[in-house]
Amino acid sequence: MLTLLGIAGLPEIRPGDDLAALIRTHASLADGDIVVVTSKIVSKAEGRFVPAADREAAIEAETVRVVAERGAVRIVENRLGIVAAAAGIDASNVPEGQVLLLPEDPDASARRIAEGLREVAHVGVLVSDTLGRPWRLGQTDVAIGAAGVRLFEQPGRDADGRPLAVTMPCVADELCGAAELVKPKDGHVPVAVVRGRGDLVGDLALPGARSIIRPLEDDLFRTGG
Amino acid sequence: MLTLLGIAGLPEIRPGDDLAALIRTHASLADGDIVVVTSKIVSKAEGRFVPAADREAAIEAETVRVVAERGAVRIVENRLGIVAAAAGIDASNVPEGQVLLLPEDPDASARRIAEGLREVAHVGVLVSDTLGRPWRLGQTDVAIGAAGVRLFEQPGRDADGRPLAVTMPCVADELCGAAELVKPKDGHVPVAVVRGRGDLVGDLALPGARSIIRPLEDDLFRTGG
Repeated sequence: MLTLLGIAGLPEIRPGDDLAALIRTHASLADGDIVVVTSKIVSKAEGRFVPAADREAAIEAETVRVVAERGAVRIVENRLGIVAAAAGIDASNVPEGQVLLLPEDPDASARRIAEGLREVAHVGVLVSDTLGRPWRLGQTDVAIGAAGVRLFEQPGRDADGRPLAVTMPCVADELCGAAELVKPKDGHVPVAVVRGRGDLVGDLALPGARSIIRPLEDDLFRTGG
Repeated sequence: MLTLLGIAGLPEIRPGDDLAALIRTHASLADGDIVVVTSKIVSKAEGRFVPAADREAAIEAETVRVVAERGAVRIVENRLGIVAAAAGIDASNVPEGQVLLLPEDPDASARRIAEGLREVAHVGVLVSDTLGRPWRLGQTDVAIGAAGVRLFEQPGRDADGRPLAVTMPCVADELCGAAELVKPKDGHVPVAVVRGRGDLVGDLALPGARSIIRPLEDDLFRTGG
């Protein structure tokens, strides 16, 4: 059984706040839990605010490649390898007159939070963001930062013992999507605790979420196919 | 709180089996539950087997558009609007010498199952499939059929009361991804029950999962941008 619990009651996050300490105060953590933290509060704690007037310049600075463009819509790859509209820069739940960049290095952010949380329990940490996708409407939450969590299921074999060479579910993204189901977008529940997949929790030296990004040379949809 | 329970113990599914009756026997359902059924057992119950020798012809018949192609890799849109390698035709957990097509009409399948399950509880039903995606490695489970479930969250406003015009999380896909976390790919747990989002369960006349497919004219990645 898997259970997901949204963690409410955190104060409005300000630059310099110690997220691990705040999460430890508000959540009751157990060994094997996976803590999913909305990237927005990570950015706020890291002071990634930019004046709204500089939004276009910030998008330009975060962009490494335009992936698709039509009219006012511009889908770009940012310096983290994340493909998103506006390079992942967001204004919702941000003070008027400001916009928020993604964390500088979400894997490093996840590691710092995990180190702080492991003072109380052996947990893994995912930093989530809300991204659109081609072909399908709407968005899902996916992992842009990770520490101490195995990101892919290695299913091995089907029921008849045949190897499933191609199938490698991205459990990190599925965990972040699941966490969204208990974290309404009004911003009041920026953290969720997933309990029941402790088998995915491991060493902090496990690969971070950057390793989920498909290498450019293998991608049929980033280079024009 | 959200809980997910994998339902084990179902027999190997054969053409003509009544999935709703089998699920009713093996799961204890409550009003507001969302039942996620792996498309594979739906296809099996509907007898969607094809001899492995006819695999190429079946892929051809299911394909409406080639979306990308490189070497042996061919990503196509099938008649359901689903973009996938091999048009969604699969051989894992299928008897030797056969392959399995996706259900003829997964929304109709979901509706039939939901009608059968609503004899015992007011539940919603999602039919899930495992799909790759551009830009990111691995796969996630998403909804290809739905009945009696709201597919998108309508979040309305952020914490400051500003409308979130663009954000519309696809909770149906997130629910299917979450369910995958309790349904290992060995095929022994083809059904999961999600409890705690009864607010998403509604009338069987709600739109099916076909409505998640982005209309071709709005899609920057299906027409070549």
